[in-house]
Amino acid sequence: MSGYRIHGDGVSGNCLKVKWTADLLGLPYEWVETGVLKGETRTSEFLALNPAGQVPLLVTPKGKALAQSNAIILYLAEKHGGGLIPDKGFARAKAYEWLFWEQYSHEPYIAVRRFHKTYLKRADEEIDPKLMERGLAALARMEDQLTDETFIAGPAFTLADIALVAYTRLAHEGGFDLNAYPKVRAWVARVEKRLDLGAA
Amino acid sequence: MSGYRIHGDGVSGNCLKVKWTADLLGLPYEWVETGVLKGETRTSEFLALNPAGQVPLLVTPKGKALAQSNAIILYLAEKHGGGLIPDKGFARAKAYEWLFWEQYSHEPYIAVRRFHKTYLKRADEEIDPKLMERGLAALARMEDQLTDETFIAGPAFTLADIALVAYTRLAHEGGFDLNAYPKVRAWVARVEKRLDLGAA
Repeated sequence: MSGYRIHGDGVSGNCLKVKWTADLLGLPYEWVETGVLKGETRTSEFLALNPAGQVPLLVTPKGKALAQSNAIILYLAEKHGGGLIPDKGFARAKAYEWLFWEQYSHEPYIAVRRFHKTYLKRADEEIDPKLMERGLAALARMEDQLTDETFIAGPAFTLADIALVAYTRLAHEGGFDLNAYPKVRAWVARVEKRLDLGAA
Repeated sequence: MSGYRIHGDGVSGNCLKVKWTADLLGLPYEWVETGVLKGETRTSEFLALNPAGQVPLLVTPKGKALAQSNAIILYLAEKHGGGLIPDKGFARAKAYEWLFWEQYSHEPYIAVRRFHKTYLKRADEEIDPKLMERGLAALARMEDQLTDETFIAGPAFTLADIALVAYTRLAHEGGFDLNAYPKVRAWVARVEKRLDLGAA
């Protein structure tokens, strides 16, 4: 097979970002299902590919391995075009800003609370209250941004929308009520349509 | 003044990344000292510039604001050249990988433990033990990488070195002993020399 190999866990938003980007770009790839809860990111074979022990992991046709979801989608978008991020200038930098914000101020709260609640089956009182507090702050920040803009980094759809929709659309699984964020809900629907996804 | 304005806190590694990158590129800028502990990132004036309430913040000569340290240094390096990141291809993507890894798997442990210990003056037993455990894991990952490579993303100095040195060189202020990581120590010295910094 001459395409990419994507090692990913099908319930991980970080992994689905890579799948969606490859699908949007029409790239051939083999998906290697790699279960985090099954310990499949901690085997010696997997650690030889990615010493960080994390999915997603992209392996190129030449056998080179790339980690970090947002680095992978930037690589694919740069290499294969498709207009998923402006080529240069300030508009490109704003997409970077939201990609880094997603990993620092959104995913560690919204995705992590979902993991604790839905996958580790923890009761609300066993989950660090900081996760709810900071997750709500992240949603409020997005609501504010989407009051002014159609997409998260500005008027055009970009990789930042792909990155941020991954866990925002599943926020209810972490106990976050999106009804309080109507602009966010409408944006989730817009991005799901763009990605040809059903509602979560 | 026709240059950039950088709002930053002089004790924040994230802010110093931006200063060092601007200095390397020889860019004129005005540094606006903005103290996090003094609440200066939470004033209404500052929140109007950056609703996320975080420094660093870059304001361009045209008055446009950009947040997130690694987004800012990518922007400056793309706009002003200087060879701080490969223009394209897989080597560029590896620099992205380490920039995202820094914000997700290094800064939240090494920088945050330093903040708790040195700035909030917390005793070791009051600090979440996860910060030490994961910070040590991050240092071990760097030691492993720097056993194979001269710089963090490969044979060439890149923005990933600037990003990762910011808090690694101050790790001792968070209670991390770099003596156990000789490759990391040697790399810190190499990068400090490149950035024309004295030892921390």
